[in-house]
Amino acid sequence: MKATQTFILTLKEAPADAEIVSHQLMTRAGMIRKIGAGIYNYMPIGLRVIRKVEAIIREEMNQAGAMEMLMPFVQPGELWEESGRLRKMGPELLRIKDRHDRDFVLQPTSEEVVTDVARNEIKSYKQLPINLYQIQSKFRDERRPRFGVMRGREFIMKDAYSFDQDEAGMRASYEKMFTAYHRIFKRLGLNYRAVDADNGAIGGSGSQEFHVIALTGEDAIVYCPNSEYASNLEAAAACSVQPLTLGKEELQKFSTPGLTKCADVAKLIDVALTQTVKTIAIAVDQFDESNQLLPGSAKMVAVLLRGDHELNEVKLKKLPGLHDFRMANEAEILATFGASPGSIGPLNLTANVEVIADLTVADMADWICGANENGFHLRGVNWERDLPRAKAYDLRNVVVGDPSPDGKGTLEICRGIEVGHVFMLGTKYSEALKANFLDEHGKAKPLVMGCYGIGVTRLLGAAIEQCHDARGIIWPASIAPFAVVICPVSYDKSDLVKKTADDLYTAFLQAGIEVILDDRGERPGAMFADWELIGIPVRVVVGERSLKEGFVEVQGRVEVEAQQVTLDQALMAVQKKLTI
Amino acid sequence: MKATQTFILTLKEAPADAEIVSHQLMTRAGMIRKIGAGIYNYMPIGLRVIRKVEAIIREEMNQAGAMEMLMPFVQPGELWEESGRLRKMGPELLRIKDRHDRDFVLQPTSEEVVTDVARNEIKSYKQLPINLYQIQSKFRDERRPRFGVMRGREFIMKDAYSFDQDEAGMRASYEKMFTAYHRIFKRLGLNYRAVDADNGAIGGSGSQEFHVIALTGEDAIVYCPNSEYASNLEAAAACSVQPLTLGKEELQKFSTPGLTKCADVAKLIDVALTQTVKTIAIAVDQFDESNQLLPGSAKMVAVLLRGDHELNEVKLKKLPGLHDFRMANEAEILATFGASPGSIGPLNLTANVEVIADLTVADMADWICGANENGFHLRGVNWERDLPRAKAYDLRNVVVGDPSPDGKGTLEICRGIEVGHVFMLGTKYSEALKANFLDEHGKAKPLVMGCYGIGVTRLLGAAIEQCHDARGIIWPASIAPFAVVICPVSYDKSDLVKKTADDLYTAFLQAGIEVILDDRGERPGAMFADWELIGIPVRVVVGERSLKEGFVEVQGRVEVEAQQVTLDQALMAVQKKLTI
Repeated sequence: MKATQTFILTLKEAPADAEIVSHQLMTRAGMIRKIGAGIYNYMPIGLRVIRKVEAIIREEMNQAGAMEMLMPFVQPGELWEESGRLRKMGPELLRIKDRHDRDFVLQPTSEEVVTDVARNEIKSYKQLPINLYQIQSKFRDERRPRFGVMRGREFIMKDAYSFDQDEAGMRASYEKMFTAYHRIFKRLGLNYRAVDADNGAIGGSGSQEFHVIALTGEDAIVYCPNSEYASNLEAAAACSVQPLTLGKEELQKFSTPGLTKCADVAKLIDVALTQTVKTIAIAVDQFDESNQLLPGSAKMVAVLLRGDHELNEVKLKKLPGLHDFRMANEAEILATFGASPGSIGPLNLTANVEVIADLTVADMADWICGANENGFHLRGVNWERDLPRAKAYDLRNVVVGDPSPDGKGTLEICRGIEVGHVFMLGTKYSEALKANFLDEHGKAKPLVMGCYGIGVTRLLGAAIEQCHDARGIIWPASIAPFAVVICPVSYDKSDLVKKTADDLYTAFLQAGIEVILDDRGERPGAMFADWELIGIPVRVVVGERSLKEGFVEVQGRVEVEAQQVTLDQALMAVQKKLTI
Repeated sequence: MKATQTFILTLKEAPADAEIVSHQLMTRAGMIRKIGAGIYNYMPIGLRVIRKVEAIIREEMNQAGAMEMLMPFVQPGELWEESGRLRKMGPELLRIKDRHDRDFVLQPTSEEVVTDVARNEIKSYKQLPINLYQIQSKFRDERRPRFGVMRGREFIMKDAYSFDQDEAGMRASYEKMFTAYHRIFKRLGLNYRAVDADNGAIGGSGSQEFHVIALTGEDAIVYCPNSEYASNLEAAAACSVQPLTLGKEELQKFSTPGLTKCADVAKLIDVALTQTVKTIAIAVDQFDESNQLLPGSAKMVAVLLRGDHELNEVKLKKLPGLHDFRMANEAEILATFGASPGSIGPLNLTANVEVIADLTVADMADWICGANENGFHLRGVNWERDLPRAKAYDLRNVVVGDPSPDGKGTLEICRGIEVGHVFMLGTKYSEALKANFLDEHGKAKPLVMGCYGIGVTRLLGAAIEQCHDARGIIWPASIAPFAVVICPVSYDKSDLVKKTADDLYTAFLQAGIEVILDDRGERPGAMFADWELIGIPVRVVVGERSLKEGFVEVQGRVEVEAQQVTLDQALMAVQKKLTI
């Protein structure tokens, strides 16, 4: 393609609302243009990258036996009523009415529709397994859309749904997708990591996320450098890191006027923060038989964590009865503990307060906590002697240096951007929508489902967050809008330059290389800056002076110096750079 | 691909609501599944055809210099406010509110968004011409969606928009698109016709439609068998077909008790229907300065047409002052003409009624019309002698046998399905949205636009309406879901059949033929019926008996008999059938 035949829309400045580098660079490179909050036009250069990402995904999905279909963007509310999501989902599900005042939604995903397809079309176990996918625009009415394509409202997503006759089948389908995802992200040329994720109901290894590694990533990824272990922070298992010791100190109350943080209390008496325990008061509201809130009757729970640890709410929610917990308010805390937050502790509580401890706290001795009296803390606290042993669970976020759950080393944490998710759904939707099949004994059973998403437009942003420099985007060759740009200097003035550039262009095209020829007649500086911003992997500069010496210049996007090659060698030099 | 790897969803019966053959066959062939009124899932076989149609369109659009981009499905209401369409368009424009109660619309087309792109990105005449297109889902909230993909609510459309500096440029861009459309429809392998259409404001040759010819088409297409002339009925020019004669009869009133139709009156006195004139009373409401309707003050117009002719409202609306005409009501007619509809005529009217005549009526003599007295008509009516000559215009639909406007013969009428439209928009949107560019003198001017649509999903329906038989769809090879199907008889039982079928499958794939192997183990009758219904152009039957004689059977979808060919010849025989 020639540059005059496409829409090169590079900008010197990024828009004021572009907070992150991918948003800035996608706008400056002319890939996207904002048309409303979280709603973008994908301009020709941007669409080329989208299509390349889609093509790789499509090939690998087909290769893995999935079948592509297309579900509507506007979906009937009845189906979402059946699954319960029409009522349960928050306002990010955009509900609309048609001219006859019927309910519709704009699809954020398509579990309901695909389950409807399955219940209509899948009759027998003989048809299974089946995996249906689509690559389609989605809509989520984010409260505060931002970060360009990273948190847009309308975006492109590949969503796939597998149907199996039992859990073993589902796990096999899941494995296939997991493998396909690895192939996809490898082909995309990105540094990525598959990490264990939490999936609520099914638990265990039933859900994994694929993250593009980037310093600017919004998610913390926990991994073991010596093994395959990786997890998102919510799901990473923590164990006790407190060596079991016997208590030696006496229980002692001491004055801590105005000090409400463990760090301050530890500093006051010059002990390590790891010797302190913080008490977090949570509440679980109670309801009567007709589901009305019973005011003032919330069940109170004291959660104990070591002073330097952080509560992992996802883990806490999984404990029986705590799924709908909330933080207790000041009045509740005062009434229950007789002190304000920051001075509370687990000793001498009434029976109606449950105490639960993180595993690490359960192994501590001679610890420090609030005295349930404002301005006072206790030290030398020991289990059994001073208070009953609390039930202990894994309730905290892991931290760097924690032992890896697989026993193969200690954990590190890096940042990632979630771009894919594979998930064992089980029978949640098939039971709600009565999507049954007949098994080999002729018995009706609910289909066992998995779902698998990849954020196509988000991937563009993630790739850029990972691969860029001060001059612009650095595309992996597999998804670059063009593989090579030919930059002729004085294309509009020198016949020799024009002829050489045109010939090279033709030769590259014939060799199957996606090349763009900059025939705009721009000055070299502006021309080079444009293509570095857009991020084309290889640049070939054709200038009169070099030509007279028999050379053109070939330079990779991240290379500091250009390589002088003869015209005969140009094609091979370019091919070599593209296959590195 | 193998049949067990895709979703073959053939049905014996069509759904009850499928009124037309394409809807029936697309459903029975498993191409689409309805999920709501006018909203469909495109199943794997259907999506394959969509992708092929899209690929042909995309190649030809790119070849013609258009640039692909992607505009959002959900579009900000502000832009539609600027163009005025947010208020003016009917309820087929689905207006929605986001969580912040802001206005959005689901795009039925994208004039507003693309004009917004243009005003932001096009600064100078040097950037022109530019043509931007997208292939995207669209939404029109049809009051009564039906006919499957022919009148759906969510559908896929290719919409392109050209930007030029002047009308000459626009016409050149329009010509390019017109040529590209011919290439597209030829490559699609369909019998089609480009016809002149009405485009309101710009007139003349400023708008053409592309119709797929089909007996079941909903539009009448007027054409001249001896020339290139073709038009839709609204836009086809009619001339006078009444020979100029001198009046011989006297004006005479005669009794026509209860007769209100020209045909009945003509029969009563035994004259040709072509001797009668019907008078149609129309009204144009008047408004005061603050745009309030002035009741009872509608301007009345009597429109004269020959008794056997039909009013063309599109032509009538183009006359000065008549754009917003409506049919007069009975009370208005009685007050103005002193008689009821069916007995009114153009004689002896008060000055405040304008009389206009179709060209044919203007050339008539000794004609018959209502007497403005219930139960009476006049005969022997002649212009000038009995009433002043009325202004005459082309106001009627053409009929079969009318002279072609190009003078090359007489007109025929056939039925067509509109699948494409090219349209000279001019500056309607660029002026409304202030999309200006600087011309070579540095002067700001509005961009001159054209717009060009192709209904992608509608094309599937139109192709099927044109090409089907009692057994199912007959796809043109260019857009068939697969070019060839291999049907092995007893694939699951005969090793010889299985090996031969597998080998042929591999050979076809290697030759670049899109082949599907039916490995389902179905019985021959059911297997053949499925692929005839789905409409695969060529079938290769591999059976043990023929194989032992050294043959396989190759048969085109519309051929009555199969051809026996040796295994060596099979590939060539198939290729030959596909290139016919």
